[in-house]
Amino acid sequence: MNTSTQLSAEVSAEECGAWASAVRAASRKLAIAPSSAKNDWLIRSAEALRARTREILDANAIDRDRAPALGLSTAAIDRLTLDAKRIDSIARSLEQIAALPDPVGEVIRGEKRPNGLDVRQIRVPIGVVFIIYESRPNVTVDAAAICVKSGNGAILRGGKEAIESNRALMNILKDQFEPSGLPADSVFLVPTSDRAAVGLLLARNDLIDLAIPRGGEGLIRRVVSEARMPVLKHYQGNCHVYVDKIVDIDMAVRVTVNAKADRPGVCNAAETLLVHRAIAERFLPRAARALADRGVELRGDEPSRAIVPSMIPAVPADWDTEYLEKILAVKVVESIDEAIAHIDRHGSKHTDAILTSDFAAARRFTAQVDSAAVVVNASTRFNDGGELGMGAEIGISTDKFHARGPCGLRELTTTKWIVEGDGHIRL
Amino acid sequence: MNTSTQLSAEVSAEECGAWASAVRAASRKLAIAPSSAKNDWLIRSAEALRARTREILDANAIDRDRAPALGLSTAAIDRLTLDAKRIDSIARSLEQIAALPDPVGEVIRGEKRPNGLDVRQIRVPIGVVFIIYESRPNVTVDAAAICVKSGNGAILRGGKEAIESNRALMNILKDQFEPSGLPADSVFLVPTSDRAAVGLLLARNDLIDLAIPRGGEGLIRRVVSEARMPVLKHYQGNCHVYVDKIVDIDMAVRVTVNAKADRPGVCNAAETLLVHRAIAERFLPRAARALADRGVELRGDEPSRAIVPSMIPAVPADWDTEYLEKILAVKVVESIDEAIAHIDRHGSKHTDAILTSDFAAARRFTAQVDSAAVVVNASTRFNDGGELGMGAEIGISTDKFHARGPCGLRELTTTKWIVEGDGHIRL
Repeated sequence: MNTSTQLSAEVSAEECGAWASAVRAASRKLAIAPSSAKNDWLIRSAEALRARTREILDANAIDRDRAPALGLSTAAIDRLTLDAKRIDSIARSLEQIAALPDPVGEVIRGEKRPNGLDVRQIRVPIGVVFIIYESRPNVTVDAAAICVKSGNGAILRGGKEAIESNRALMNILKDQFEPSGLPADSVFLVPTSDRAAVGLLLARNDLIDLAIPRGGEGLIRRVVSEARMPVLKHYQGNCHVYVDKIVDIDMAVRVTVNAKADRPGVCNAAETLLVHRAIAERFLPRAARALADRGVELRGDEPSRAIVPSMIPAVPADWDTEYLEKILAVKVVESIDEAIAHIDRHGSKHTDAILTSDFAAARRFTAQVDSAAVVVNASTRFNDGGELGMGAEIGISTDKFHARGPCGLRELTTTKWIVEGDGHIRL
Repeated sequence: MNTSTQLSAEVSAEECGAWASAVRAASRKLAIAPSSAKNDWLIRSAEALRARTREILDANAIDRDRAPALGLSTAAIDRLTLDAKRIDSIARSLEQIAALPDPVGEVIRGEKRPNGLDVRQIRVPIGVVFIIYESRPNVTVDAAAICVKSGNGAILRGGKEAIESNRALMNILKDQFEPSGLPADSVFLVPTSDRAAVGLLLARNDLIDLAIPRGGEGLIRRVVSEARMPVLKHYQGNCHVYVDKIVDIDMAVRVTVNAKADRPGVCNAAETLLVHRAIAERFLPRAARALADRGVELRGDEPSRAIVPSMIPAVPADWDTEYLEKILAVKVVESIDEAIAHIDRHGSKHTDAILTSDFAAARRFTAQVDSAAVVVNASTRFNDGGELGMGAEIGISTDKFHARGPCGLRELTTTKWIVEGDGHIRL
């Protein structure tokens, strides 16, 4: 198949079908490939990325030259930009994935049945995964690596602003398949930024088992509405920090600042601070000062503003907004129950934290708050595959179905029952 | 809310929303209810079903009286019919579910991170499950029991042919919630057979987390196309038995007959028999005789008919048909690879078996056949929650996403990460 880069060439349904068919055929071999071959490919790819840094930087320069014409912001150009250090860090992430245990073949339960039949449920790859993402070129390498390690074929569709960088990275990865004994079509980078290609591929639930959009809400909604296969998605992170009535105030200030200001643009950053009325007068002035020092704008309800008048008045929409900026909504609550009810109503079930000295309050909050991660006396920022000990992740699911929270290798598998007998029949 | 039975009263969107909201509110309490309360409800319900058998039989008689007017077949009327023995068996299934381990709260992984943070991933209920099913009234009790035990609220919608029986059973179950300390709205039976109610409920992905259709393909397709929440579905079981070239022929005949003729109408019954050419002349005449003795019609390809001329000629559609009757398609293959390729192309990834004496062939078949259950030297009929040691099941998923194969208590859960620290911040 023709894989040359065509910045916005139109594609046909036939072409998309041929791409997906090739990956599907490769995925059958990849599914039964030994870990040693997959790890060999990861290690070779890491070495090749370092050895061919020049080639990647040249391609990246073309993307950066085109960036102003595409209207990219300075922040977006920064995300797009590669240098030797970033390439080394991409290579290191491949080495880390090689070091993770292979989920394929893991026995998750099993027994000898009373009739002597041996049954076991094992992990197997899902099949072919289609990942649609935006500007960062490192996603091309990470996504390919996570899919291959978990035995899945991958179709990758990056943003047009990174198309040359993505192509250069993919060429290097592709060259390593044959030496490692894996099929060359295990991973395929869609070579055009024609938007129709995404829709055509999302229709092929006969060839693609799972779609994963990584990017803004518009991208996710489009994928959800067009995909005919399941979608592993990641909507808003409208995360809360609740400061309970008995708490170490130093700790509460430190954690609140970290949850909001460490990296305000990520999904596990806090967006609303709930404070028990009994501690509000002591906690809020200090928290407000520390947050202001980090440049955070506070939007408070009336009781909060009575304590810290410099806060901007909050409007109802503030409780439902994922700012992804240095803005924090603040609300005084009468009880832990009011805090839990507020989170239930306005939260996005992503990450919510309680800061408390009270053991019973911690137990109650973790039991009743229904979020992908519930945190006690720590920053919401810890809801992350690496921090939770999962290694690489392909996103943080806010769905309840299939996988919830950070999605790593295990979350890209399904299961199969193996039943072995001696001619057993059912009576 | 008004729960009186209205055989085909029209419902409004508001009414459906009120039903789902009530179950959603109850599900929050049910999610944190202790196992002891849930098991108490199961045991009380079993006792009450036995004690109130008369009430159930009277309601069942009304359904049976209406059955001819609804055009039910003799087989359908048999499925609908309850007697004291069947009611006792329904009660026993509740006692069995009470004895199963509670999946809620199970820690599925966890560790102390290098920074001292304690992290663990635990099972939690999905929330509210909507189950749409056809004639058998025992499903009303089984579905309610599996949902409650796994901490999920349940909305049940049975077939109109069993509406009086379902209502009587539900009244008995509902009466046990309060004495067990569980919310009365934990389970709700849709009180009308108005088809619009199903569509209105399938639109409420804000209140219902999962839809499970149990029934024919028409029902499943309708649910898949209308549901705005995930669907746990169960399409065809086009299951294969492959008889390899070296095999104990007595065993192969016995298992083939069991796989096809034990219960031809169920999804794990075999529909196609693949036979290696090297053994076809010795195996097929004996298998054909044994199957004919059980009233099975054989539809063979040319090589099969050259050996057993009494077979009806198979047409291409036979390879793709789930007969659910005493019919078996038969094909001679040149190799195990041809068998695997045939299954890959025509199978439904439900249950496929190899009968062989060859260890390497068994390993190859179980590795390469991508089905929910792959069986060696045993009947396909063993792909069943009870037979695999899972206890009660709510269906057999042919999806790869979330759950594959029999779905029991664990498959009705999602997960939550609990993160505990001492004021940890991310650096």
